[in-house]
Amino acid sequence: MNVFRRKMATLASVKQARKVVCIGRNYADHIAELNSARPKQPFFFLKPSTSILLPGEGPVIRPRGVDLHYEVELALIMGKEVKDLEADDEKAAFDAIDSYALGIDMTARNAQWEAKKKGLPWSISKGFDTFLPLSNIIPKSALPNPHKIDLYLSVNDKVQQSDNTELMLFQIPRIISDISKVFTLEKGDIILTGTPKGVGPVVPGDVMKCGIKVDGKEIEEAKIEVA
Amino acid sequence: MNVFRRKMATLASVKQARKVVCIGRNYADHIAELNSARPKQPFFFLKPSTSILLPGEGPVIRPRGVDLHYEVELALIMGKEVKDLEADDEKAAFDAIDSYALGIDMTARNAQWEAKKKGLPWSISKGFDTFLPLSNIIPKSALPNPHKIDLYLSVNDKVQQSDNTELMLFQIPRIISDISKVFTLEKGDIILTGTPKGVGPVVPGDVMKCGIKVDGKEIEEAKIEVA
Ligand SMILES: [Mg+2]
Ligand SMILES: [Mg+2]
Ligand SMILES: [Mg+2]
Repeated sequence: MNVFRRKMATLASVKQARKVVCIGRNYADHIAELNSARPKQPFFFLKPSTSILLPGEGPVIRPRGVDLHYEVELALIMGKEVKDLEADDEKAAFDAIDSYALGIDMTARNAQWEAKKKGLPWSISKGFDTFLPLSNIIPKSALPNPHKIDLYLSVNDKVQQSDNTELMLFQIPRIISDISKVFTLEKGDIILTGTPKGVGPVVPGDVMKCGIKVDGKEIEEAKIEVA
Repeated sequence: MNVFRRKMATLASVKQARKVVCIGRNYADHIAELNSARPKQPFFFLKPSTSILLPGEGPVIRPRGVDLHYEVELALIMGKEVKDLEADDEKAAFDAIDSYALGIDMTARNAQWEAKKKGLPWSISKGFDTFLPLSNIIPKSALPNPHKIDLYLSVNDKVQQSDNTELMLFQIPRIISDISKVFTLEKGDIILTGTPKGVGPVVPGDVMKCGIKVDGKEIEEAKIEVA
């Protein structure tokens, strides 16, 4: 027995994350629905940690004039520093993960289209306060195979996204490796692994519910219900 | 005399910044030199805090295949939380600034061109480790008018950038206001205010020196010398 057992991340520590890195276009059907090009390698962008919305912290705030879209994604919470990780070092990649969470990468879709058209950064369209609702922390033991879990999201109880993470174009070790060759990943950093198809708009008053199922069984920690 | 005088930011605290927000295209001549469109309002993007390189921490690392450009910029170090600041509240904007620094917004220009062309995020081209050399901290008292200071940058002792901050398209209160309406600014956050004309490439071995002059007088804290 390991006496000096490492403590798992807490919601308080998650809120203090120094970096939130999000993978774009990691599910083929989602790429098709946005008429995007399929990337030859993972690409990613940053959300500020001020966009994090923890369970119970209230609703997502829609900025005026914004076409607000949800994107449900599996989140990795890093447990140690990672730099220049080799893509085939799966053991090191998984060892570097502290725990998981479910997240909604809220996106100002009209601002993002405009940024894409003009070649401008995505930071504004992805970064407003409350644009990253997160679930409670999911212990690693609850997701023994994170590449074989069902993500779902419903709006007003109508299911809009429901797909398995086996559909990821780039899997978790490759994602961590590619990011770590650009930015050093630090303990507490959060990685969003991309969204499956079915993204769409929400308006104030809509209720989003999302979660993770493993072999048909709901993971309690992964549930998010947010207005 | 204020007995409970607030302590100024330290280099250690700067390294712990949770957010680095950078304004793009804030000097007309720099917009012209990159054939960019003049923005109707400030736009901005994030650099990860892992890109910060403090004085004495060594050289900027050029990733393989990268066309590395310098952009000298005045940096603001925030002293308090700011949210939804009105653009005309100049007093509140300046009160929220703890101190200044000089920074070099290192940019993988070829990666950025490609991202612009494809409508992809700028995070990778702006975010590599060591891509944000910072000077020592400059007390506010040293820059009584930050809109009237000379920024300069030389490469191997040849001056490449040299302009006055009076040329900013959007001044500091407007910048802080616009950012604060998207992301809550937190104590310790860093804002880069854009670069004047003269950006260009550096290769390993080149030495960049930059600084700030006020009325022709060098500000010691602002000096950066980095390979
Ligand atoms: Mg970006
Ligand atoms: Mg996403
Ligand atoms: Mg810049």
